[in-house]
Amino acid sequence: MSDSRPIAVDAMGGDHAPHEIVAGAVHAVRERGLPVVLVGAPRVLYEALADHGATNELPIVRAEEALAMDEGALASLRRPRSSIAIACHLVRRGDVSAVVSAGSTAGIVATGKLRLKAQQGVLRPAIAVALPTLPHPTLLLDAGANAEVKPEALVQFGHLGAAYAELAHGVEHPRVALLTIGSEAGKGNKLVRRAHELLEAAPGLHFAGNVEGYDLLTGKADVITTDGFTGNVALKTMEGAVRYAFDELRQSIGDSPVARLGALMQRSRLRELSHRLDAEAHGGAVLLGLNGTVVIAHGSSRAAGISAACQLAADLSEGGLVTRIGERIASTGRSHRSR
Amino acid sequence: MSDSRPIAVDAMGGDHAPHEIVAGAVHAVRERGLPVVLVGAPRVLYEALADHGATNELPIVRAEEALAMDEGALASLRRPRSSIAIACHLVRRGDVSAVVSAGSTAGIVATGKLRLKAQQGVLRPAIAVALPTLPHPTLLLDAGANAEVKPEALVQFGHLGAAYAELAHGVEHPRVALLTIGSEAGKGNKLVRRAHELLEAAPGLHFAGNVEGYDLLTGKADVITTDGFTGNVALKTMEGAVRYAFDELRQSIGDSPVARLGALMQRSRLRELSHRLDAEAHGGAVLLGLNGTVVIAHGSSRAAGISAACQLAADLSEGGLVTRIGERIASTGRSHRSR
Repeated sequence: MSDSRPIAVDAMGGDHAPHEIVAGAVHAVRERGLPVVLVGAPRVLYEALADHGATNELPIVRAEEALAMDEGALASLRRPRSSIAIACHLVRRGDVSAVVSAGSTAGIVATGKLRLKAQQGVLRPAIAVALPTLPHPTLLLDAGANAEVKPEALVQFGHLGAAYAELAHGVEHPRVALLTIGSEAGKGNKLVRRAHELLEAAPGLHFAGNVEGYDLLTGKADVITTDGFTGNVALKTMEGAVRYAFDELRQSIGDSPVARLGALMQRSRLRELSHRLDAEAHGGAVLLGLNGTVVIAHGSSRAAGISAACQLAADLSEGGLVTRIGERIASTGRSHRSR
Repeated sequence: MSDSRPIAVDAMGGDHAPHEIVAGAVHAVRERGLPVVLVGAPRVLYEALADHGATNELPIVRAEEALAMDEGALASLRRPRSSIAIACHLVRRGDVSAVVSAGSTAGIVATGKLRLKAQQGVLRPAIAVALPTLPHPTLLLDAGANAEVKPEALVQFGHLGAAYAELAHGVEHPRVALLTIGSEAGKGNKLVRRAHELLEAAPGLHFAGNVEGYDLLTGKADVITTDGFTGNVALKTMEGAVRYAFDELRQSIGDSPVARLGALMQRSRLRELSHRLDAEAHGGAVLLGLNGTVVIAHGSSRAAGISAACQLAADLSEGGLVTRIGERIASTGRSHRSR
């Protein structure tokens, strides 16, 4: 299945918008051959395109408003003509195949839910983040779209993640695990204890049991399901810990004169590694369960991150992610009923 | 205030019990000058002491049973004569000043609550872990004693942690922060939103606002309060992420022949760093809010970790941690009533 429709890039969202966003979109067009539409304030975007000598290469769709990075969910109601709202509208109309935005996560989630609506049967759309495990990433979801959920939603997150893992990482029968605080079935709070029971009984899902915080980066599961509060704390804790470890290491290297020589040699490898750990490398998080593909690039994304996010958006929409999720949710509904 | 009573070491708890536990206790006696009592199976402990030529240096208190590392909370009821139960009993009787155990955390928490009881006014005893920030550690609690709590408990965890930070880290007016998923007051789930309101109004507490997962290792707060589910996931995620970063780095070093020379020089610094990140260095977690000091050494502790845990236990009990917590809780109760 091939989808030749363009990707809509929200050019006004992100710490480095619009300049780096436009640079990333231009990169996606030129180096990846992806069709891209920019959404935002025409005058500003025209100038940014001119900087790259790309004025006629990317179409611009007008959006006079934008959500600020510190604006939350409510802003999406107050600003129906924001760049992210218009981008979602283009998906809805079928003019584009997917949206990429580096704007405020809360704003993207709220706008996406409002404009694209949840797919039929999906209780709660969720944010899936690809953790840098090998040989393929581990998907953690929900990474923050839903601070409070029912146990049933944790089962659905498993299905959403499994559909993504099958499509994007080529995993057959993805192992879905539940994030909690002990490996035995009875461990955790009320939410996860009940979710454990439901996951064990869930048809069409390869439930691999409980995992703990240690296991996020061990590749023990292909998909890890959790509520958005826990998932967000875990994700940010991980990012903070990795940054801490590298900072400490950089200081150690700086402190020791003898070590400096070897350190020079290692610096490029360190960079490669921290790159792999970084959102830039994998293109960002994906909001799953909506009637349309929405890729949430890291707020601090520069051109490379935006370009990678466009690739991810194109791959997921070409692979028919929304349809696959729809089929999965529908078939679990049927299995439930037929039991 | 000086407390010359010994520390009771649960010699049967831990992955490397009893040999490494006894070695650590012997180290605490010989190198730190701390009085220590071993609790466990006399014959086994006698032999372990003989290995160190220390048969008459440390008294042994008999406990014929022990909790296995995979035994949880219920085992403490089934085994009233386990080494951890006897150790707690010695604290209760006033024969020793504190307990050190590297046994199953769930077992220690359950036994501690049962034998020592919560201090008057304490809703929920909690596990505090010292994170390796500089210039002094950041305390994270609850790290796993309570999977489900009410918002009021998060305020008390702030007080428990503040008392610990004042005593052990010499922090005046410790900054207490709330772990959640956004820095604004309205962010998070129901539990933390309500806890935020209570913390803002809490007398005698320096509430420093919300922190996110990123901030666990930045030293932005002296005490971070959270429920035991979130705290445990965050702690294990952090440990996993740091281990991951070092493993990746070690592989990078191994891969590159040119980098190997410098790497040799850096290895000792890496070791120092991973040591600081390790439980061995700071002596372990502390179960706060009981009528007695209980230090929970990491299950994988070897002699150095046990010896450091004995030092921590001695420092906390000499400093009157239990009394300080009691005064804090009592005074907040009074302030509440007088408002």
